[in-house]
Amino acid sequence: MREFPVAGAAPVLALKRSSKMAENVLFAPPGAPSELEEGAALTPKFGPDGLISCVVTDAASGTVLMVAHMNAEALTKTIATGEAWYFSRSRGALWRKGESSGHFQRVVEMRIDCDQDAVWIKVEQTGGACHTGRRSCFYRAVPLGKSGTVALEFRDERLFDPAEVYRKRD
Amino acid sequence: MREFPVAGAAPVLALKRSSKMAENVLFAPPGAPSELEEGAALTPKFGPDGLISCVVTDAASGTVLMVAHMNAEALTKTIATGEAWYFSRSRGALWRKGESSGHFQRVVEMRIDCDQDAVWIKVEQTGGACHTGRRSCFYRAVPLGKSGTVALEFRDERLFDPAEVYRKRD
Repeated sequence: MREFPVAGAAPVLALKRSSKMAENVLFAPPGAPSELEEGAALTPKFGPDGLISCVVTDAASGTVLMVAHMNAEALTKTIATGEAWYFSRSRGALWRKGESSGHFQRVVEMRIDCDQDAVWIKVEQTGGACHTGRRSCFYRAVPLGKSGTVALEFRDERLFDPAEVYRKRD
Repeated sequence: MREFPVAGAAPVLALKRSSKMAENVLFAPPGAPSELEEGAALTPKFGPDGLISCVVTDAASGTVLMVAHMNAEALTKTIATGEAWYFSRSRGALWRKGESSGHFQRVVEMRIDCDQDAVWIKVEQTGGACHTGRRSCFYRAVPLGKSGTVALEFRDERLFDPAEVYRKRD
């Protein structure tokens, strides 16, 4: 994968360049609560790890497909391209959703929450969002009204075989 | 607010007692990925801060109302009572949604994701979920296809006056 900067992902606000993936150099810092909540400036509140949570729903059905994380670069690329980009905490790398599986996400709409520490995107999902082969990562229900040990209930079937979709290419 | 233990919130798996709010003493620790993803045991992966992300959607419309955080106790109480409980990072305290505003959330369904580090609840929301007075915290859209500074677009009107709803009681 190419390092920043890449084509089509010009910074929203380039203050300085840095080799640190987690450092936000693309957005102005968050202001006072009144500005964060009632202003028109996008000033995301990234966590200490440089990441912001992103909720991904199916634009057609409203199903929550996954929760992922974006650093400033992933958020910038998602805004610029209309394709979902994330930051993989396990791999420590920028990640275009679908780059391994072919299951891309086209962003139909993006929203930001009141204190700008969470993003919601509505997407058109190719195939399935979950690496286990399901459409959504939330394929198990937690029974309610229980105060003892609970048994998760499987609700969704696999759409694809992960071993096939994620197999290493020769 | 009463300290743990409280009525109606018996622990799912009480391993030991602790005064630390952030320490998980209610659930068994997460196992190997195969168990986490394909097992029926609820073994949430709380972060270093003892919290798990919770996406809250409107059960009727599918709108994402908010993203909040739960510690083990909040999760246990939500499961046991069917009412949404969270952990407020700013106040460092357990928090029953609606306790100040009267805008409670009745949980219709709870789901957990593949690696058990995020929860999704579908709720019946009384009034509005957002402390700014809107139905949803995600009341601003981020325009796509932009590589310069973006201006947020307000999409939702206020349902209530926060100053009125959150005013201190005599």
